[in-house]
Amino acid sequence: MASDVAVIVGVGSGLSAALARACAKRAMTVVLAARNIDKLSALAAETGARVIACHAVDRPQVDALFRAVGEIAVPSLVVYNASYRTRGPLVELEPAEVARSVEVTALGGFHVGQAAARQMLPAGRGSIFFTGASASVKGYAQSAPFAMGKFALRGLAQSMARELAPKGLHVAHFVIDGGISRGPGDPRGGRGVDGLLEPAAIAETYLHVHDQSRSAWTWEVELRP
Amino acid sequence: MASDVAVIVGVGSGLSAALARACAKRAMTVVLAARNIDKLSALAAETGARVIACHAVDRPQVDALFRAVGEIAVPSLVVYNASYRTRGPLVELEPAEVARSVEVTALGGFHVGQAAARQMLPAGRGSIFFTGASASVKGYAQSAPFAMGKFALRGLAQSMARELAPKGLHVAHFVIDGGISRGPGDPRGGRGVDGLLEPAAIAETYLHVHDQSRSAWTWEVELRP
Amino acid sequence: MASDVAVIVGVGSGLSAALARACAKRAMTVVLAARNIDKLSALAAETGARVIACHAVDRPQVDALFRAVGEIAVPSLVVYNASYRTRGPLVELEPAEVARSVEVTALGGFHVGQAAARQMLPAGRGSIFFTGASASVKGYAQSAPFAMGKFALRGLAQSMARELAPKGLHVAHFVIDGGISRGPGDPRGGRGVDGLLEPAAIAETYLHVHDQSRSAWTWEVELRP
Amino acid sequence: MASDVAVIVGVGSGLSAALARACAKRAMTVVLAARNIDKLSALAAETGARVIACHAVDRPQVDALFRAVGEIAVPSLVVYNASYRTRGPLVELEPAEVARSVEVTALGGFHVGQAAARQMLPAGRGSIFFTGASASVKGYAQSAPFAMGKFALRGLAQSMARELAPKGLHVAHFVIDGGISRGPGDPRGGRGVDGLLEPAAIAETYLHVHDQSRSAWTWEVELRP
Repeated sequence: MASDVAVIVGVGSGLSAALARACAKRAMTVVLAARNIDKLSALAAETGARVIACHAVDRPQVDALFRAVGEIAVPSLVVYNASYRTRGPLVELEPAEVARSVEVTALGGFHVGQAAARQMLPAGRGSIFFTGASASVKGYAQSAPFAMGKFALRGLAQSMARELAPKGLHVAHFVIDGGISRGPGDPRGGRGVDGLLEPAAIAETYLHVHDQSRSAWTWEVELRP
Repeated sequence: MASDVAVIVGVGSGLSAALARACAKRAMTVVLAARNIDKLSALAAETGARVIACHAVDRPQVDALFRAVGEIAVPSLVVYNASYRTRGPLVELEPAEVARSVEVTALGGFHVGQAAARQMLPAGRGSIFFTGASASVKGYAQSAPFAMGKFALRGLAQSMARELAPKGLHVAHFVIDGGISRGPGDPRGGRGVDGLLEPAAIAETYLHVHDQSRSAWTWEVELRP
Repeated sequence: MASDVAVIVGVGSGLSAALARACAKRAMTVVLAARNIDKLSALAAETGARVIACHAVDRPQVDALFRAVGEIAVPSLVVYNASYRTRGPLVELEPAEVARSVEVTALGGFHVGQAAARQMLPAGRGSIFFTGASASVKGYAQSAPFAMGKFALRGLAQSMARELAPKGLHVAHFVIDGGISRGPGDPRGGRGVDGLLEPAAIAETYLHVHDQSRSAWTWEVELRP
Repeated sequence: MASDVAVIVGVGSGLSAALARACAKRAMTVVLAARNIDKLSALAAETGARVIACHAVDRPQVDALFRAVGEIAVPSLVVYNASYRTRGPLVELEPAEVARSVEVTALGGFHVGQAAARQMLPAGRGSIFFTGASASVKGYAQSAPFAMGKFALRGLAQSMARELAPKGLHVAHFVIDGGISRGPGDPRGGRGVDGLLEPAAIAETYLHVHDQSRSAWTWEVELRP
């Protein structure tokens, strides 16, 4: 019996891998969903995770993902980590790239959040977490598309939290306010010990929020290096 | 010579009409752009406005709009008022309607903002204003799509303001925190004198912000009834 | 008959002088209140202002100020500009100086705001404005006392706005997000044209907010250079 | 050897008791400091806590408290829970009560925070936590004094976090956005299972934030029932 399933959408960053390891360590069944699953075999082997190809902006693929998940069990934790960004001077941005930034970063979050809520609501419990960034709360120059996507994802999370908390679902938004370390060889390591966030440390806070008693839920948390 | 042109995108609400009247009163040349221009003839006659059909999510239409505007003059003021929303329990929302909410409310704002900035930057001056709502800063239950669109529009406005202010463009975001009166017959009039915002009063603050000296610009302002 | 009285508390900065000039220009009767009035004679002569010595943290002095004002008329506009700050590494701050920062910056604002509201409420109209800073919304390192004072003043303004708006009083909070120019000889002029806010430009926005129709009031506005 | 000391200032609410129990459960040495310690003997007996009378607005008492703590060990965790509030129509508030609200709620936090930082800085580690409320981020009608105090405390926390994080101290601010349950007999129990926050659940999140790796620290967290 697989009683405790975690679904992580948008694998690739160190955070998703750290979440997969942290969930596996507590004997959760892990499902990794990503558009490109070519590089996930090592992580899957390490965590015993099931890997499912899924482009989160394509609704039928999201529905298929959750049908597959549902055959295991109603998930207790769903995390949406996928994002896409294009950068540059505002006047030079490609409209199609801007649209893609909003679609992957925010609309994919809606698809996954809605599909997860549909499975969880009958059970009246489950956590749906969205990963934000500094750009979720502040629009930076030359980065309007990412701000649009991450602001929208935060609006989605707030709205879902307000609506679904009374029904037993814990929706939370995590503002990762800094760069995430990619490991020992990270070229940004020059920032020093305080320059980057360790994915494993972030994952611990995700799981703490997942563990919170319904009597004192966090809807949003900022994490800084 | 038409030296002072205002472009108002998304006409229909009382706010756009009030802005058109306020601009016309100060002898600005007004261009009204809307997807459906059938009902704009009276307002156009009253304000001397030129009316151009434009669906803001269709980039070629936006580019055509600004080519037409450019034949008059570089606009000094561009206001993006268009929005679309779908409401209901999160699990019942139609994905296509959610996408449309984000596209009209936020991506259309990008198209218009980028096209406006391209015209204004060589002149090094001009105002680009975005109209927000209570949903720009708070995600309400059963209203995730509108929150997604309006949050995204705010992220766009912040990013544009930070990037373009040093280049002389005044980008501002207006949080209209309440319902806008539709006039004497408004069925919501029962809210009393303080229940709704008068469009003409809102328009005055838009034009004040447009008039602000570059030395003390407002990037965001809330208006409440 | 002096029908339109403006009271400006905490004179000294360029902003108070600019407000005094802007009010005088529209034929308002100006009252300047400050702890130290020695340097105000030139400004008083220029604006026809009445000058009253008042230390805003000393309640009897505030009450005496408003008794004197009341003998002219119920003020239509009261602005609280006074502040005090001590800076330095947190562990080296003098507790008495920290207390004084909070008292002058925030408690003085309460005394003035309450005294003003007592006069204005029977008339059911009037504006009470509080001047904030970048430190009103963000706590900077080595500047905890100023953050404490300015955050507290913002809390006061929000609470008063929410309570008194339904009674006809317009309470607003201005976040001056940058340095205020002290004129042509300002040693900080090296920041360039965009580095400092011109007091006269700020004053224009204060008076616009004062002029706003009750139907669309601003509770808070940010101004940036 | 007492290697791990927690100091809880402002005992009385259910939260402080729950924190004391949670710290004692993990074998921390607990020091309870409160103005009135008469009712703390049962809690002290239960948790093995040392009880010290201390009025946090009286700096010599705060310094004496931390001298006593220092004789045990440099504390690893200091929590400031004390607050005081007066309520009522703005124009009827007693100025002395308003001053006391700000002093107990915010200036006492400065005294405790500074004294704690002075002890912790040489060690380069330790957590200093401040307890906020809904009033920390929103000024409610008829509650200006509490908003002033809680806003100021948040400004203090932000400023301390920004300054002291690079030096190894973890300063965090907790927004308790709702009423805290006082136990089975709580007359507000009619709010239902979701109406009040359980102190033990809040305490768990405090200790999680205390446990966070320096690589991903939370500076502020909201907790809702």
